[in-house]
Amino acid sequence: MAALRLALAQFDFPVGAVLQNEKRILELIAEARDVHGAGLVLFPELALSGYPPEDLLYRPGFLAECQAAIQRIAAQVSGIVAVVGWPESAGAVVYNAASVLRDGAVERTYRKRELPNYAVFDERRYFETDPDGEPCVVAVDGVQVGLIICEDLWFSEPLAASVQAGAELVLVPNASPFERDKHAQRDALLAARVAEARVGLAYLNVVGGQDALVFDGASVLADGDGHIHAAAVAFEDHWLLADYDSATRRFAPRRWPAEADESRDSLAWRAIVRGTRDYCRKNGFSRVWLGLSGGIDSALVLCIAVDALGAQNVTGVRMPSRYTSGLSNDLADEQARVLGVKIIEVPIEAPFRGFLDALAPHFAGSAVDTTEENLQSRSRGAILMALANKFGGLVLTTGNKSEYAVGYATIYGDMCGGYAPIKDLYKTEVFALARWRNAIAGAPVIPNEVITRPPSAELRENQTDQDSLPPYDVLDAILLRHVDQEQSRDEIVRAGFDAATVDRVLRLVRISEWKRHQSAPGPKVSRRAFGRERRYPITSGWR
Amino acid sequence: MAALRLALAQFDFPVGAVLQNEKRILELIAEARDVHGAGLVLFPELALSGYPPEDLLYRPGFLAECQAAIQRIAAQVSGIVAVVGWPESAGAVVYNAASVLRDGAVERTYRKRELPNYAVFDERRYFETDPDGEPCVVAVDGVQVGLIICEDLWFSEPLAASVQAGAELVLVPNASPFERDKHAQRDALLAARVAEARVGLAYLNVVGGQDALVFDGASVLADGDGHIHAAAVAFEDHWLLADYDSATRRFAPRRWPAEADESRDSLAWRAIVRGTRDYCRKNGFSRVWLGLSGGIDSALVLCIAVDALGAQNVTGVRMPSRYTSGLSNDLADEQARVLGVKIIEVPIEAPFRGFLDALAPHFAGSAVDTTEENLQSRSRGAILMALANKFGGLVLTTGNKSEYAVGYATIYGDMCGGYAPIKDLYKTEVFALARWRNAIAGAPVIPNEVITRPPSAELRENQTDQDSLPPYDVLDAILLRHVDQEQSRDEIVRAGFDAATVDRVLRLVRISEWKRHQSAPGPKVSRRAFGRERRYPITSGWR
Repeated sequence: MAALRLALAQFDFPVGAVLQNEKRILELIAEARDVHGAGLVLFPELALSGYPPEDLLYRPGFLAECQAAIQRIAAQVSGIVAVVGWPESAGAVVYNAASVLRDGAVERTYRKRELPNYAVFDERRYFETDPDGEPCVVAVDGVQVGLIICEDLWFSEPLAASVQAGAELVLVPNASPFERDKHAQRDALLAARVAEARVGLAYLNVVGGQDALVFDGASVLADGDGHIHAAAVAFEDHWLLADYDSATRRFAPRRWPAEADESRDSLAWRAIVRGTRDYCRKNGFSRVWLGLSGGIDSALVLCIAVDALGAQNVTGVRMPSRYTSGLSNDLADEQARVLGVKIIEVPIEAPFRGFLDALAPHFAGSAVDTTEENLQSRSRGAILMALANKFGGLVLTTGNKSEYAVGYATIYGDMCGGYAPIKDLYKTEVFALARWRNAIAGAPVIPNEVITRPPSAELRENQTDQDSLPPYDVLDAILLRHVDQEQSRDEIVRAGFDAATVDRVLRLVRISEWKRHQSAPGPKVSRRAFGRERRYPITSGWR
Repeated sequence: MAALRLALAQFDFPVGAVLQNEKRILELIAEARDVHGAGLVLFPELALSGYPPEDLLYRPGFLAECQAAIQRIAAQVSGIVAVVGWPESAGAVVYNAASVLRDGAVERTYRKRELPNYAVFDERRYFETDPDGEPCVVAVDGVQVGLIICEDLWFSEPLAASVQAGAELVLVPNASPFERDKHAQRDALLAARVAEARVGLAYLNVVGGQDALVFDGASVLADGDGHIHAAAVAFEDHWLLADYDSATRRFAPRRWPAEADESRDSLAWRAIVRGTRDYCRKNGFSRVWLGLSGGIDSALVLCIAVDALGAQNVTGVRMPSRYTSGLSNDLADEQARVLGVKIIEVPIEAPFRGFLDALAPHFAGSAVDTTEENLQSRSRGAILMALANKFGGLVLTTGNKSEYAVGYATIYGDMCGGYAPIKDLYKTEVFALARWRNAIAGAPVIPNEVITRPPSAELRENQTDQDSLPPYDVLDAILLRHVDQEQSRDEIVRAGFDAATVDRVLRLVRISEWKRHQSAPGPKVSRRAFGRERRYPITSGWR
């Protein structure tokens, strides 16, 4: 029986960068053949266009460029078989396709059968399925190799059709964004499919950050007898090599650096760091700015920024007001020193005073309220933006999922910024991740007092978050049920939460929708992230 | 042969307001029967949930409420047949359905066959089609009445199946958002379908604003012999009554106030006014604030606000700086006086100076650049928000489509606000609509000098927009081709535009994507509006 050496290209293929991806794919094909001796090299789903290209797929010029690029790649393939994902246009119809390239030509093209159109996915907005589409099975080095794409694996039929057509090994290129706890689900799925089909599956996932999505790679092999190999190191670009024996239907990994830490915190941390790094890099920012309040959120984001970009590319900005405690200033300074980050101070008293003076003729006789708090926050937002405008770089905004959920944030104030690293972490998860990050650091990179002090926005005297919100453990538990699990008000109350608190929290979620619509993207970590994954009307009569 | 009196409920059914819509539908059913003597009353697509409910459709509690409401409505129907659109859940599957309610029960339910999933539509995110779905034809007062839903009409099959099943008259409830030039397209479609099917079509569209969409109503009847009746008055809530004769297959309108002005400007104006009014009303705002610069954009938005909410509910805010000309102040005052709008002045010098002072230690040695311009704009944004925070009301933001396209706007500055009335009008269209509005007003409601003076942001001495941008007629022509028509750079250059200008404009569009992602919604008017209709990656390597 035959054996085939596979090379899986777990790399980042940026969205829209067709010519750059074309060049990279050609280099990688040559490397797979010449350096790694592979008989077949597999690229991720839509590697040529990047994933997801969104409405670029509505542009005829974009589709034509992809078509031309795949032909140019095919023309240069020799001595190896390459399988490359790309958006294939045929008349007015577009397919999510992967083509088998061999001997200077496109030999076969497979069209994805199952198009996800839920959660973060919009594939039926762009793609059609092909009613006449056939399974794609080709012989490579004597092995009958089948091909299905990503969502196809979540249904029995595409794999079964491939096996029926003779496949002894099936390739599964993916563009599957990270979310917590998905790996176990994926491995269970692989096991179930292998139990049905009894062939080896080579599951390749793309890697890299793309706006609110982070693709984790973590590619994996499943033998035909049901054994699931260790997944590859997540969130990193690397070659993965394995030999497949069609007699035993087993893989022998040749180069397959295995993931060492699949803990939830480690994966979440790396997702956020990679997402932040790639957002900056791909959008041309080498440096970032963020406000340091002495609180837990900005402290965690500072660590993320340092891990993503290096301390020399991060500037912390302290913006004290009349309400900022000395402790807050000290803690911000201490953390910046520990991390080796430059910190500057821009007090907000002058612009805040300027706003109050300008508005005084109109505010005379009105009580002080959140208006004045928002003006402090907006003074800070404008200062951070001014620094980035003047000196270049991106402003990171430091809000967490609890704040975005209930609107405990000032739009055009602390919500200012291009990227929101911890947008998909509830406050209790922020604390947990801060403790985890300190634990792996040896010495604390976040001062312990930042973690233990009561959270406060410091927008008035002696304020704490708990003046306005339920305790975070209660708040987050309600939010998790309501936002992530779609539970109704009554279900949450029946689970033992105080009805008045539940009503208050749900109302806050509802009336904050307009703020979330104007918020910066941040990396999806959970199974239900705000943004493209949770599309709510602003105007809504649902109670 | 038989005759049937139809009542079409061209009313607004707010999204998510299931209980309120249930109550309203019951009242309207009674009115159709008791006041109008109708044998059948038709409600729009998804009238019970409102359209589009977006991810509310992912909430089991929401679907259960719709299910319970339709049963409660059905239980009260007697002496008339009611056809009501609603989201029908059956196990894990949801259908875009319309039910025939008669004699206290749901008699039949039709499930939409063609689910739009392009442009602003995401129906395949939520709904399935029913492979076993049958045409829905019921006898009412001796007439065989068929039923299809909205997008079904754009294909031959659903109507043909209904006619094949015996329909002599087919009802078409819709939720079809306004866009310019769509009416002619719709009438041509109706004519084509009638030519195929030879039955009368009663096309009912919902009315009202929902975030970035405005449903225009403009319901219409098509006789079986191909005659298309005049459409009903657009953008208004009203009953439409007609008798259908199954012998002649013709309608005799009994109460069908016909649209008097189908000019592009009139329709666009009313779309924007209705969108603005409904956004405010449905979100609980009775008053609005906007900055008045003395320029055309804010002048037009002031007129829109007055038409939408009444002069007494609008406050204009002049926020002069050291660069504001006396003419700008005078023109803003003059327009406010003409329209009877209260105007207040809040000079920005104090906060602007405060920002400069606070940043001076860091900016020392740096040249003045757009940073200082943005600080002026952000001072204004914060002042408008402070006024709305302190006294209640919504801030309207006054940017136009040209500005959103090329990023000629300060994020967190003049982009501050909850709703953007002219977001989908290019600058040249803003001028055209201003002239149109003045023409219908008799005396100018926008001072003529506002229309004739060169546009300027007045953020530095002697600035005009044309210092930074190509002339607006050139800019808008390029944008129309690139944004609305998906033309490539080469196509636009071949059409005769200067290559360097095209490259510059396309680059600006590309690098402004992040700002648009954080922008307020505004009413869709064109065939390709920014927002949910044009979904671009922020991070993109496409050039």
